[in-house]
Amino acid sequence: MTSLSLSSPHSLSSPHHIASTHLLLRTPNSTKFRTFPHRIAVSVKALFNPVLTQDGLKKLVADKAVDNVRSGMILSFGTDSTADFVVAKLGELLKFGQLKDIVGVPTSKRTEEQACSLGIPLCFLGDNPHLDLAIDDADEVDLDLNLVKGRGGALLREKMVETSDKFVVVVDDTKLVTDLGGSGLAILVEVVQLCWKYNLIKLQELFKEEGCDEKLRLDADGKPYVIDNLNYIVYLYFKTSIRDVLAAGAEISVLEGVVEHGLFLNMATSVIIAGKSGVEVKNK
Amino acid sequence: MTSLSLSSPHSLSSPHHIASTHLLLRTPNSTKFRTFPHRIAVSVKALFNPVLTQDGLKKLVADKAVDNVRSGMILSFGTDSTADFVVAKLGELLKFGQLKDIVGVPTSKRTEEQACSLGIPLCFLGDNPHLDLAIDDADEVDLDLNLVKGRGGALLREKMVETSDKFVVVVDDTKLVTDLGGSGLAILVEVVQLCWKYNLIKLQELFKEEGCDEKLRLDADGKPYVIDNLNYIVYLYFKTSIRDVLAAGAEISVLEGVVEHGLFLNMATSVIIAGKSGVEVKNK
Repeated sequence: MTSLSLSSPHSLSSPHHIASTHLLLRTPNSTKFRTFPHRIAVSVKALFNPVLTQDGLKKLVADKAVDNVRSGMILSFGTDSTADFVVAKLGELLKFGQLKDIVGVPTSKRTEEQACSLGIPLCFLGDNPHLDLAIDDADEVDLDLNLVKGRGGALLREKMVETSDKFVVVVDDTKLVTDLGGSGLAILVEVVQLCWKYNLIKLQELFKEEGCDEKLRLDADGKPYVIDNLNYIVYLYFKTSIRDVLAAGAEISVLEGVVEHGLFLNMATSVIIAGKSGVEVKNK
Repeated sequence: MTSLSLSSPHSLSSPHHIASTHLLLRTPNSTKFRTFPHRIAVSVKALFNPVLTQDGLKKLVADKAVDNVRSGMILSFGTDSTADFVVAKLGELLKFGQLKDIVGVPTSKRTEEQACSLGIPLCFLGDNPHLDLAIDDADEVDLDLNLVKGRGGALLREKMVETSDKFVVVVDDTKLVTDLGGSGLAILVEVVQLCWKYNLIKLQELFKEEGCDEKLRLDADGKPYVIDNLNYIVYLYFKTSIRDVLAAGAEISVLEGVVEHGLFLNMATSVIIAGKSGVEVKNK
């Protein structure tokens, strides 16, 4: 990761290892983002402080994410609402010949249908262990671009696609944290049914010092909620942020019967952050 | 682990970190094994080279394993044929008041029924993350008492019980290897159905240097075999032994959608080895 740090208004860019520069553009809608070399972070802010609609901001972010797509790539689009704009932009670039031979790996029915309707060729998760690029949102982003993801419960699918060569995260600035886990929202752990109680207790012990409430995810009838991989989900609610996320991730992974967890560590290569007045990009 | 090494006829005891002494007894059947302090390995050999039947040897090994049981313990008995002798011996000790208040965690229907018939109180796997003791067999044992286990497919259950405070392994001396993986027999990896192909390819890449054939376990009809946790099993057939088992175990664990693997590393505290002429014990 580069250590270049020119200026940044945001606390994210300070002592940690994320490089940052600024590029001021006339209006966000007229933006033709330059292609910056990898490992140079770019903060883009709208000049004249124009009022951006929510959808305008999402489109701006999606366009910036799509800047990373090259002809011939296999890529996933994400599952959040920005994904609609990503797929739409890809369809447009294909239509006008600015991109060709891309293959999409959809992770939701909605983006699958949208991509089909726009003539984007698709292949399916599990058949391609190596994606060139993944674009998706995140629930928390820390100063080192480690993430909490998968609160919707699809964390295994998300982690599979996001081991891609390049993983571009799109978030709004409310998702930025100093350290992961401190937002009070759940971090998920997917466990085999047989050993949910076993892992609940093991996780309690593992995070005794952080202070953490562990709860099995239940359905509306109060029964354990079975996700589509036929496993259960344990929610971790941290009282303070996790002091060493890399150690925590490794220790959760080796617990017997843990399938995946919601800490996405050293995976994001870029984070595109939407704020009220524009877009900032941080690369790793 | 102690480094005391007095003498040993077995290649196992040489340069690695397993301590070894010898105790010669008159006959294996008259053996009243002394309780040796933890971390002192004991090799017991039959004097006068009596001919031991297969069952005689299993009983001898089982009795030696049961020497580790103390009143009040929660323990699992294992699933192999020695387990019958372990459960029988426990029943006998309870009956004559030499043990009390033990609770068994059966991992097979057979030992569950046998333990019930002998009045051994039982509790079930998943309710107790902390067992005091586990006794079980292994498929391979290396010089550092790392194991390959779970070829029967129950590797998750086995790993859950064998994170116990004390894990006593009972094997015959054909299971001893210098390094794990070199026997040519399969090491199992349990994976979520969704990502079996993804992991097959990831595992191929991980063990490119060792040379490894990865195969999905199939049923009699050639369809993927679904184990009781509803997952699939990938078989790893190594062409040469694994150079760094600790790194290999950690790297398999963090693969997306891997539930467990058959490398049981730094788990065994004692290995009781049955040879043609007697029994050897190695403690860690």
